[in-house]
Amino acid sequence: MSLITVERKVLEKNDVIAGENRKIFRDNHIFVINMLSSPGAGKTTIIEKTISELKNKIKIAVIEGDVQTDLDARRIDTFDIPVVQIVTNGGCHLEANLVKDAFSRFDSTDINLLIIENVGNLVCPAGYDLGEDLKIVIATTTEGEDKPLKYPAIFRNAGAMLINKIDLLPYLSTQSENTGGLKFSIDILKQNALSINPALKIFDMSCMTGQGIDEWCKWLISNIKAD
Amino acid sequence: MSLITVERKVLEKNDVIAGENRKIFRDNHIFVINMLSSPGAGKTTIIEKTISELKNKIKIAVIEGDVQTDLDARRIDTFDIPVVQIVTNGGCHLEANLVKDAFSRFDSTDINLLIIENVGNLVCPAGYDLGEDLKIVIATTTEGEDKPLKYPAIFRNAGAMLINKIDLLPYLSTQSENTGGLKFSIDILKQNALSINPALKIFDMSCMTGQGIDEWCKWLISNIKAD
Repeated sequence: MSLITVERKVLEKNDVIAGENRKIFRDNHIFVINMLSSPGAGKTTIIEKTISELKNKIKIAVIEGDVQTDLDARRIDTFDIPVVQIVTNGGCHLEANLVKDAFSRFDSTDINLLIIENVGNLVCPAGYDLGEDLKIVIATTTEGEDKPLKYPAIFRNAGAMLINKIDLLPYLSTQSENTGGLKFSIDILKQNALSINPALKIFDMSCMTGQGIDEWCKWLISNIKAD
Repeated sequence: MSLITVERKVLEKNDVIAGENRKIFRDNHIFVINMLSSPGAGKTTIIEKTISELKNKIKIAVIEGDVQTDLDARRIDTFDIPVVQIVTNGGCHLEANLVKDAFSRFDSTDINLLIIENVGNLVCPAGYDLGEDLKIVIATTTEGEDKPLKYPAIFRNAGAMLINKIDLLPYLSTQSENTGGLKFSIDILKQNALSINPALKIFDMSCMTGQGIDEWCKWLISNIKAD
């Protein structure tokens, strides 16, 4: 038996459970987003800002995925909304069965928006459907403009790209004389992302200044209402 | 047959080939480093700076690992040193057999230092020995101080941590009044890393300003000479 065969079986089994998750979410009128990025791009902080903006309008629950620690769930817990932490113990992505188990831990299914924060990884989570309505990819100004080209699968499957840390842009683009080509161009990042996924919705964002949070939340609400 | 069994077989097979690589590298007096980080932490740029600093002192070759594109190998190629690009086509880490194949493509084994740039991923490459002498992890000031705790395996196995983008520190630590707790502390990052790996050698670094490159290269040379 080759690894490829096993991998296909794992993915087939995952797709079956993802379909079950999707039915549960739809039956309960829950809109689900799967947040994906490199480590340290700001997933948890964006979730915090999204909760702050929307918690008085809709009912939100969060599933946190991490290789180790419950640091992120503890951050979300301060907002007094339902949160479950999945610790993968070395696992590099969330799978549908983990999400199904985590979802069963919520006391109530009276939820409008379920936010799933995946493991920080731009490669492995791409292949695993969790039953979500939308994948959201977070890029940052500090990561460089070539990431959509180098990690195309996640950018191809995402509904929106949030470009976080936009507040650092002046310090990344004005030092070009000294950087030997290290100047960052947000326009090239956007061009690269749209070349992979022309339908991608893009938001400039800063969790430091709050820029873009309002626009992102309005777009998210419009997607929930249209669902 | 369970996935765990297959995974162990894959790792056992990898370890055998990594041992073969290690013997080849030792027989040819080649010191090998395996560079690991999140996407966009600056691996390629640090390799460029390292080549610039050392290319007149020692013979360097580079193996580039990426999910897609040969962008990184093309950057290294401008230095007129031997470089081989591995495109994993979705694979989330390098394995010893890929490195063995890549190494066989070099015209000569008259190399003092082989730099392997792994796929940008803080999870999966941790488990795969490539036959290297040292693993080097690159963290950045923009990723947050919790990464060693959340992704401990790579930090535990690394000989050194390069903290890149140190030039951005003033913009990450002085805005604390407006950031709602987003202030970054490099001291806490170092404490977290040392709690996982007390022997970790740490370098503050900026590829923008050049800070730390000289110190890192001197340390690297001392390791090569001691080998």
